[in-house]
Amino acid sequence: MIILGIDPGTRITGYGVIKYLNNTFIRIAGGSINLPANEPIPQRLEIIYSEISKIIKKYKPDEFAIETAFYGKNVQSAMKIGYARGVSILCALHNNVPASEYSPREVKKSVVGKGAASKEQVSFMIKTLLNIKSEKIKVDESDALAIALCHAFRFKNPVKKTKDWKSFIEAYPERVIQN
Amino acid sequence: MIILGIDPGTRITGYGVIKYLNNTFIRIAGGSINLPANEPIPQRLEIIYSEISKIIKKYKPDEFAIETAFYGKNVQSAMKIGYARGVSILCALHNNVPASEYSPREVKKSVVGKGAASKEQVSFMIKTLLNIKSEKIKVDESDALAIALCHAFRFKNPVKKTKDWKSFIEAYPERVIQN
Repeated sequence: MIILGIDPGTRITGYGVIKYLNNTFIRIAGGSINLPANEPIPQRLEIIYSEISKIIKKYKPDEFAIETAFYGKNVQSAMKIGYARGVSILCALHNNVPASEYSPREVKKSVVGKGAASKEQVSFMIKTLLNIKSEKIKVDESDALAIALCHAFRFKNPVKKTKDWKSFIEAYPERVIQN
Repeated sequence: MIILGIDPGTRITGYGVIKYLNNTFIRIAGGSINLPANEPIPQRLEIIYSEISKIIKKYKPDEFAIETAFYGKNVQSAMKIGYARGVSILCALHNNVPASEYSPREVKKSVVGKGAASKEQVSFMIKTLLNIKSEKIKVDESDALAIALCHAFRFKNPVKKTKDWKSFIEAYPERVIQN
């Protein structure tokens, strides 16, 4: 199963494509769509739509995952992120890829194990889970890969729910890093 | 010149089509796209996109106008409105109709003369300016027609700026209702 994760924004939209096969996860592709700051919003939305369309046509994902909710306080920022998300979701639908939404908290919880994880913790776990050797992956790609992984975990363990670290480790023994 | 105004929302999206010719404004069409509450957001966005596409194909507007900004405090509401706006703007672009954005304040100011006008004042002026006889037009359509009119005024008086009621009346004598 191939999953496309998107972390949308009107300045930078991150994307990550992973393959989930035989209980392992492989990073297929990832990067960011940079939106020119001097372009008006409508043109940027057009770029987001057309670039995601290209990614879908190239990697043929079976599933599409995106973040929902917004934890900032600025309503104008929330609305602009809404623009980019709406267009991304529509693009998935127009390409017949089912779209799922996760809150940032769900994404962090599924990847790191706690909903309040830092960007660095997310990035570290992404590299570990996807066996990425390179020193650095950009935060936009890392976030997009995290969303894709979060969705993959749902398929892997659709019902398991854990309440604390002990039950989490029991539920996900493969996610404990052995020294 | 035909202008399509859109007042987007994920529950109801209002639309209004006006014709601006020889210094007069005519309402060509207007109404609302009702989004089923039991449908998930992605499907609702698809409906908004496809319905606006149909309206554009039917009335062939030269220009498209939409509200930007959001004056509420709820970030999640702002984001959902963002979804609907992003998809609407994209739809205009995909149909080669140039999109313009106005703040709610600009719309009210251009139609009623003050940025803090009430919904009722907007509705009253819309009916007066477009010579609509029917007792009631729905608020979603009224708002969408106001956005379209706001854009039409920009073409009519591209540079005129007024600071107070006196200069406003001098600038727009045709907008003073004679008893």
